[in-house]
Amino acid sequence: MKSFLDENFLLKNKTAEVLYHEYAKSMPIIDYHCHLPQQQIAEDKNFENLTQVWLYGDHYKWRAMRTNGVNEAYCTGNKSDYEKFEQWAATVPYTLRNPLYHWTHLELQRYFDVQDILSPTTAKDIYDNCSEKLRSKEFSVKNLLRKMNVAAVCTTDDPIDNLGFHQQLKDQNFEIPVLPAFRPDQAMNVSDALKFIAYVKKLEAASNISISNFADFVTAIENRHEFFNSKGCNVSDHGLEELYAEDYTDVEIASIFNKVYGGTELTDLEQRKFKSAMLIIFAELDFQKGWVQQFHLGALRNNNGRMLSTLGPDTGFDSIGDFKQGRALSAFLSKLDTESKLAKTIIYNLNPADNELFATMIGNFNDGSIAGKVQWGSGWWFLDQKDGMTKQMNALSSLGLLSRFVGMLTDSRSFLSFPRHEYFRRILCNLFGEEIENGELPNDIAWTGKVIKDICYYNAKNYFGY
Amino acid sequence: MKSFLDENFLLKNKTAEVLYHEYAKSMPIIDYHCHLPQQQIAEDKNFENLTQVWLYGDHYKWRAMRTNGVNEAYCTGNKSDYEKFEQWAATVPYTLRNPLYHWTHLELQRYFDVQDILSPTTAKDIYDNCSEKLRSKEFSVKNLLRKMNVAAVCTTDDPIDNLGFHQQLKDQNFEIPVLPAFRPDQAMNVSDALKFIAYVKKLEAASNISISNFADFVTAIENRHEFFNSKGCNVSDHGLEELYAEDYTDVEIASIFNKVYGGTELTDLEQRKFKSAMLIIFAELDFQKGWVQQFHLGALRNNNGRMLSTLGPDTGFDSIGDFKQGRALSAFLSKLDTESKLAKTIIYNLNPADNELFATMIGNFNDGSIAGKVQWGSGWWFLDQKDGMTKQMNALSSLGLLSRFVGMLTDSRSFLSFPRHEYFRRILCNLFGEEIENGELPNDIAWTGKVIKDICYYNAKNYFGY
Amino acid sequence: MKSFLDENFLLKNKTAEVLYHEYAKSMPIIDYHCHLPQQQIAEDKNFENLTQVWLYGDHYKWRAMRTNGVNEAYCTGNKSDYEKFEQWAATVPYTLRNPLYHWTHLELQRYFDVQDILSPTTAKDIYDNCSEKLRSKEFSVKNLLRKMNVAAVCTTDDPIDNLGFHQQLKDQNFEIPVLPAFRPDQAMNVSDALKFIAYVKKLEAASNISISNFADFVTAIENRHEFFNSKGCNVSDHGLEELYAEDYTDVEIASIFNKVYGGTELTDLEQRKFKSAMLIIFAELDFQKGWVQQFHLGALRNNNGRMLSTLGPDTGFDSIGDFKQGRALSAFLSKLDTESKLAKTIIYNLNPADNELFATMIGNFNDGSIAGKVQWGSGWWFLDQKDGMTKQMNALSSLGLLSRFVGMLTDSRSFLSFPRHEYFRRILCNLFGEEIENGELPNDIAWTGKVIKDICYYNAKNYFGY
Repeated sequence: MKSFLDENFLLKNKTAEVLYHEYAKSMPIIDYHCHLPQQQIAEDKNFENLTQVWLYGDHYKWRAMRTNGVNEAYCTGNKSDYEKFEQWAATVPYTLRNPLYHWTHLELQRYFDVQDILSPTTAKDIYDNCSEKLRSKEFSVKNLLRKMNVAAVCTTDDPIDNLGFHQQLKDQNFEIPVLPAFRPDQAMNVSDALKFIAYVKKLEAASNISISNFADFVTAIENRHEFFNSKGCNVSDHGLEELYAEDYTDVEIASIFNKVYGGTELTDLEQRKFKSAMLIIFAELDFQKGWVQQFHLGALRNNNGRMLSTLGPDTGFDSIGDFKQGRALSAFLSKLDTESKLAKTIIYNLNPADNELFATMIGNFNDGSIAGKVQWGSGWWFLDQKDGMTKQMNALSSLGLLSRFVGMLTDSRSFLSFPRHEYFRRILCNLFGEEIENGELPNDIAWTGKVIKDICYYNAKNYFGY
Repeated sequence: MKSFLDENFLLKNKTAEVLYHEYAKSMPIIDYHCHLPQQQIAEDKNFENLTQVWLYGDHYKWRAMRTNGVNEAYCTGNKSDYEKFEQWAATVPYTLRNPLYHWTHLELQRYFDVQDILSPTTAKDIYDNCSEKLRSKEFSVKNLLRKMNVAAVCTTDDPIDNLGFHQQLKDQNFEIPVLPAFRPDQAMNVSDALKFIAYVKKLEAASNISISNFADFVTAIENRHEFFNSKGCNVSDHGLEELYAEDYTDVEIASIFNKVYGGTELTDLEQRKFKSAMLIIFAELDFQKGWVQQFHLGALRNNNGRMLSTLGPDTGFDSIGDFKQGRALSAFLSKLDTESKLAKTIIYNLNPADNELFATMIGNFNDGSIAGKVQWGSGWWFLDQKDGMTKQMNALSSLGLLSRFVGMLTDSRSFLSFPRHEYFRRILCNLFGEEIENGELPNDIAWTGKVIKDICYYNAKNYFGY
Repeated sequence: MKSFLDENFLLKNKTAEVLYHEYAKSMPIIDYHCHLPQQQIAEDKNFENLTQVWLYGDHYKWRAMRTNGVNEAYCTGNKSDYEKFEQWAATVPYTLRNPLYHWTHLELQRYFDVQDILSPTTAKDIYDNCSEKLRSKEFSVKNLLRKMNVAAVCTTDDPIDNLGFHQQLKDQNFEIPVLPAFRPDQAMNVSDALKFIAYVKKLEAASNISISNFADFVTAIENRHEFFNSKGCNVSDHGLEELYAEDYTDVEIASIFNKVYGGTELTDLEQRKFKSAMLIIFAELDFQKGWVQQFHLGALRNNNGRMLSTLGPDTGFDSIGDFKQGRALSAFLSKLDTESKLAKTIIYNLNPADNELFATMIGNFNDGSIAGKVQWGSGWWFLDQKDGMTKQMNALSSLGLLSRFVGMLTDSRSFLSFPRHEYFRRILCNLFGEEIENGELPNDIAWTGKVIKDICYYNAKNYFGY
């Protein structure tokens, strides 16, 4: 009987233990895609209590609470912080086998040195103890990043963002690079003419470029791309149900832009053509600047109309979709590659039924220019857990080169999510450890350890150039 | 070397053994969805021999026999009962690793105390021994249910059914509730105008309501729904390739009804609109009455045209389809939720490629009103086996709350299928046992045991209100 | 700690060892689908060095090298054989957990008795040692086949092939049957009118039948089918994204043929109708002659337009697609079965998300005429590895009869690929061994051993009639 969450958590044999403790553990963290609020870093915020850091923005926890029969008032509503925490503490014992159970206790251990299991019995002590710590200087968000050995962070930012907080952080000479990422989803979202017009107006303001036609629009986008570049950004990101790779002409796109910018709603095909065109434009900019482009594909968002109208998006009502991914992904990457404009690229899928498709798709565009130029991203969102990460790494191993993988990212809004890198690393080391001990891999710890260090840190470092 | 099918079958460590034997094993069975013939229960039938109970209606076994090269005469044909049994006995050794191998020997052990392996060598003895027992009072179908500690059974019934046998069972004061379930598939099947007209005529007779337009049709449906309700029914069930969530107007549906009821075939879109409308109507009725609605999605039925015309449906020629499920499921549930008319709901998928989609979809509609309001059903039909159930429970664990799961059902036509609950429970206990012993869960047997008892019995008891 | 790739490689317990060494290991190999070049067999070619046999045509290795950052010049380009080998040797250590790592070292051990791990350090010695052996008589391709205990080989041939090398091999009285397979993909590829016309011209020449209309075209096809049959062929094969089962009339098809043969491009629907018709014609011919028909479904080919125009097809730019497979597969097989024209059939899927669909589809058409008439083929192409084969065998076990499976094939272009049969057999024996030792199967080694011998050899021998 192994103790729960002990030092050899998830490590099932001696070799796995050696690989983790001697190779993986000490590697710095490059969190190359997350949603951390840059303002809080710039202000080096202290949270007042555990609820604020854990429950204010975590839709994973809200979903679990709702499923457990907890009223919305305790999730996103106006109950007190401690009342909310009590409901969360009462839910935790029901999350057995869910990643939240592991994350919760990993976070309690790693940040707060709390070894107890969270439950109604321990709720008060844990809340008081952790909240007190959170109010101390040692637990300011910058110190949380330092504590976790974070080497770089990439936030997620709209092209219209002025990146003021990123600049503040630079001015503060904060030793951990906090870099922006260019996420232009709104700039191609033409499903609602009025919303799009409003966005274009903001883009005009941000770029100081007057926009009266599609050429102006592209110029403004280029302006922001260049601005982001000047602030150290070298990553873009796109959140899409699927890639779009419709045929189109420049004349068509100019006309579609005029139509929607003139306030007329577009047909579905027009929207798809416009998105197809924009994706190529973004991709070309990324290529020109030597950026990495990322595509997060396959989420079916905002499923609950009632809650969307009440709480807005990103509140825990999204799920895994079943969109067709193959042909458009192929056509899009091929078009860029044919024109020698394919930037370093990471594709992420949300439906694990597409794992093998994604794992083999990247191989079609790895052209030998650099190792692992086109990457299949780590288990994303719902798949960012033991089962999901294991399946991703196994499929990548069988169908590509795991050794060239840029590895883990948190994709998180929380400063307490960094132990997910540890979680990933333990799973990774165990995969190798098990195969070494059962004779499926040579017992070459030095080489395997090097590969593991690469996946944990060096591959990302080289890939992103941090 | 562990013995085959011993008392610790499927339990791989001591903790799993404790969880099964001390917590799961003694829980009563709530079989909340099955296809048991109510007439046989009402008549407290005795089967004459093992072939009648095992082979007369079991398309799983027929499929295996056909694949093994057994002529149809021995499956559904006119060979003698013993000749059929001989062919089955000759097939069993070829079913190694198929669930039939486990089910067959579990059923021999649990009902008949037969420890032998079925094969041509043992066929005669087993047949004679079990058939003799089947003819005894101890093996009447009511006693089979009692023997298996069944606490409640839900059959599957067409709205036009008079539920006479259910009433007989009530009149007999049979201590195990045998309740109907409302399965109105035929009431929305408008793919063949003549068949639909014939169904409407039967509905007229059953409801004693004259049907000349869509409003009448709905009134008749409401009448039957109320009738079922009065007989203790509180569950509906739908067998569909996919959910339908087309836009439609009431005027359109009234007109579509007139068209098909007038004998004109509908277009595909008209059929889909009609089905979309009916699904909403059924769902609203279920909500009004506080029922649970179930959706079995994704079967590709009647693949073999030759055998369909010879033997009819449900004879072993169905398979797993690859229908798109995401958008319509989302739209349907959202529409009901938005109107505050979403009943307790269980969705089942037949293609395991959709596991993660279904596991995350339910989370969008769990609103905190009760724990586990929207459920993802246990591995269904082809997936009702070790691999399928394991994947379902693992995906549900990673993406939702396993602890709130209403658990297993047989979906079976056979009185000998109840050991599948035992099978499920052993797998469930083993999942927890393994994670506890390797340190992925705390060694808290009391709490884990409570969760297991909930999944085996109490969650369903509370959910269905039995 | 088990040694890497020792005699009990992949065998995790004693029972698995016994099953492999005493039952599986000595079975001859029937490689019923591969792409071996018949000319090289007829000429009993010796390769000059390891690069020629390993790297000249192996797009698996090229993909790995490109992903590892190796320039195309070392893959398909004009670097020297040894320079290419060096790059491959430098890539191998980065293929940990990829099947290439296992295949590479299995091939070094089994053919060359080399126990070393391939890496830059060992590259020179291994190259020199193996290349010298390859130049010896013992390593002529016929002797490579003999060394591997190959009992029969099926190549892959276009209907217009004159099968001259197959005839030579017959004339040489080569004791291992090397039989052709009829692969008429080009005869139904009407996506490019000019290419199709060119193909028809070649078909005219090969069949010596003048083709002026569809009836002539079919007559010419029949002529080639009969010719292949006369050369011992009894297998066809089709490589398709999906099956086509559109409705069509004979008049339509005659007209579509005239259109494309007249140089006019077809619409997508016309192409699909033509393919639907041709598939039925091929299937009927196969049925008439008692052949086995094979369908390889689901590859998304030629994803990289730039590399397709540079290197042509089959150079490592294909991947797993997400085509809908269910309905057309069902309709096609049902149409043939209804007309009592369904030949023995093997269906292969490339996307493992379709595993369960395929595993259940075959059960709809196994009619009891012979055991395992309709088969689900072994893990294909990208899935021909431990994980892919395991999933295929587990799904087949749970949803069909593994015991009736015709088992492994290489699908390979390389004379060094035969150890993949050993790989398959070890995985197979381990699946049974593990379940026997943990009590999920009876400890009946004799019966299990018989089943394993069937899957390794006898089932294929009986199925194909070799």
